[in-house]
Amino acid sequence: MLGDCLEKVRARVPLVHNITNYVTVNDVANVLLACGGSPIMSDEPEDVEDITSICGGLNINIGTLNQSSIKGMFLAGKRANELKHPVLLDPVGAGASKLRTDTAVKLMDELRFTVIRGNISEIKALALGSATTKGVDADIADAVTEDTLDASIAFVKSFAKKTGAIVAVTGAIDLVSDSEKCYVIRNGRPQMGRITGTGCQLSGLMTAFLVANPENHLESAAAAVCTMGLAGEIGWSNMKPEDGNSTYRNRIIDAIYNMDGNMLNKGALYEVR
Amino acid sequence: MLGDCLEKVRARVPLVHNITNYVTVNDVANVLLACGGSPIMSDEPEDVEDITSICGGLNINIGTLNQSSIKGMFLAGKRANELKHPVLLDPVGAGASKLRTDTAVKLMDELRFTVIRGNISEIKALALGSATTKGVDADIADAVTEDTLDASIAFVKSFAKKTGAIVAVTGAIDLVSDSEKCYVIRNGRPQMGRITGTGCQLSGLMTAFLVANPENHLESAAAAVCTMGLAGEIGWSNMKPEDGNSTYRNRIIDAIYNMDGNMLNKGALYEVR
Amino acid sequence: MLGDCLEKVRARVPLVHNITNYVTVNDVANVLLACGGSPIMSDEPEDVEDITSICGGLNINIGTLNQSSIKGMFLAGKRANELKHPVLLDPVGAGASKLRTDTAVKLMDELRFTVIRGNISEIKALALGSATTKGVDADIADAVTEDTLDASIAFVKSFAKKTGAIVAVTGAIDLVSDSEKCYVIRNGRPQMGRITGTGCQLSGLMTAFLVANPENHLESAAAAVCTMGLAGEIGWSNMKPEDGNSTYRNRIIDAIYNMDGNMLNKGALYEVR
Repeated sequence: MLGDCLEKVRARVPLVHNITNYVTVNDVANVLLACGGSPIMSDEPEDVEDITSICGGLNINIGTLNQSSIKGMFLAGKRANELKHPVLLDPVGAGASKLRTDTAVKLMDELRFTVIRGNISEIKALALGSATTKGVDADIADAVTEDTLDASIAFVKSFAKKTGAIVAVTGAIDLVSDSEKCYVIRNGRPQMGRITGTGCQLSGLMTAFLVANPENHLESAAAAVCTMGLAGEIGWSNMKPEDGNSTYRNRIIDAIYNMDGNMLNKGALYEVR
Repeated sequence: MLGDCLEKVRARVPLVHNITNYVTVNDVANVLLACGGSPIMSDEPEDVEDITSICGGLNINIGTLNQSSIKGMFLAGKRANELKHPVLLDPVGAGASKLRTDTAVKLMDELRFTVIRGNISEIKALALGSATTKGVDADIADAVTEDTLDASIAFVKSFAKKTGAIVAVTGAIDLVSDSEKCYVIRNGRPQMGRITGTGCQLSGLMTAFLVANPENHLESAAAAVCTMGLAGEIGWSNMKPEDGNSTYRNRIIDAIYNMDGNMLNKGALYEVR
Repeated sequence: MLGDCLEKVRARVPLVHNITNYVTVNDVANVLLACGGSPIMSDEPEDVEDITSICGGLNINIGTLNQSSIKGMFLAGKRANELKHPVLLDPVGAGASKLRTDTAVKLMDELRFTVIRGNISEIKALALGSATTKGVDADIADAVTEDTLDASIAFVKSFAKKTGAIVAVTGAIDLVSDSEKCYVIRNGRPQMGRITGTGCQLSGLMTAFLVANPENHLESAAAAVCTMGLAGEIGWSNMKPEDGNSTYRNRIIDAIYNMDGNMLNKGALYEVR
């Protein structure tokens, strides 16, 4: 059950090393604390190997990459691979610039990722390789909808098979697949897209779930997606008329803080395909 | 009417490239989402030209500049100028250090800015050039008050004429001028100064307004100032006795999220001089 | 009385230069504004000497150090020492990586710190020197509890004597000592540990207290610890059932915003040993 995955995070307090962007880093840290994990941030090449060694997992997010942090990503990733820690890639903006696409592709070539998590346009950009950097819109395929669901599931399974990673595509409908099974998840609220960094937050959260559930990475990745989406629903139900996206951000993190396995089991909306 | 400028932001969803400081970057992103825009942050020199090319406008804020991000500012600015995107300069701390003043002056020399937005001491530092870097206080002229209003308007018009940019000086009274007309705006609350980054947030917001209103940059810059100030008033009216500056920050962004053109038209307090 | 220290911050509006991590920097800025201070952030080596010169004190936090910001720390620290500004060191993660431990030790060798503030494991790592970088857990001595209080007080006094700095160890029980006297402080709530950056916020807050109270650094450092802890208690009392760590973060900063000297005098829980 997905709820067990959350309970294990709370019981095991996974320490997660994050190389992440400076836009949403504070929220990523607070989400990790909300779910029961413990965050450390470090991107300096001389620092990252020591830091990742004392952690249980690594979350790499390229949202505000720079030359120094890119070096840090490779060094931390290699060490984490050696230590058999789960490693997650969040390819923020892949497809929007050559540097982002190339960096994500090279990271995928040189590191083994447990999970690759992004929106559909980022994942499509990675699936098609570094030649497709003409802008964000050029690469955006149709969003995952009920109409495109079958094709989207097939795409995600195929990309998971090609990369050897669990692939998590998040949007109105979320897909989490290890190439054979695909969780189709319908939690969440469209208003979550009006908050910066719900995707980055999910990547941090998911890494904690992976660390705390080594025996079942696919299910724990799906549990993290359901946790975030359900928190979006609970947070929304606590909104007052004068509240907007800034308060909604707080309410979502608060909802994760107050969630337990039982609530997650009751609220998770998913099927396995 | 100013309300139309806001409605156009909501209708056109302008994509704004921000090279901004890491102190207030999360709030800048959430304000852009609150008003109906879409933010991207990137400061790495190798990344910024691609990113600015897919955006509609560029917001340059020197609040925590470094050698790498300074290079990024020039590269992004030149590309944005080539593409005729609106470009805004927020010269945070100009006058407080030689590097900040010199960087802002050099940016003004090499790039065409649509708007230069800062507080009165920053704008005075730029108007007087790079020789005046003996500290913040040495350069602070009297704040814009009813007593100094005529002289302040003349100063702002003159600096707008000299630079070819719209100049927006924000404080207790805000001035927005293109050298001929000057919007004198009296929205806002003094308590906004006890929140970090309301100026940075305004710069992000204003860039979205400029992108969505290419036919009228001056009016849209004034509309952005009124939006921020009115949000400060609405946010304050929602404060409870135990609330302080951290909650106030959320309430201001929330108020922007919930504002429409009609509310802005009713609440905007300005005259044109 | 501790309350006077807070009132002096509000009266003197100390300008604090922060070289701090990008995870919690926004909260540090808002806490400084909440207590009545004024924050500036700058880590670029070419910028820091000018910035620190116009400030009253310097807060160095190594939470996300990089090669450039490390240079900035030394340059700013030397200038601040020349100007006899109070300088605080927050050795985030000392003991967790060689770079962090070595940097903190070298900063202590080359600069004079007014206060060194950290958790017990960070302070123990510094006391034992740079040889102890095998991970976080390897260096964590028992937390400061009623059982270990006498030994902990002796350790803190001894480290204060060795370094010539006031040493502030924060945790369930906080200790603040100048080698002769030790404030033992019991304000705060355990849930503060579920928010990212309460330690970083305290370091910013404490620097403002040091600047505004040059005649009594020890008492003002203790007053800052009591202010933060009492704000944690007041903030908690304002929590609703659906609130979690994200809202708690706001409520703590709000409580500082609304605190006055009288409230601090009544709420401070400490003894001097």
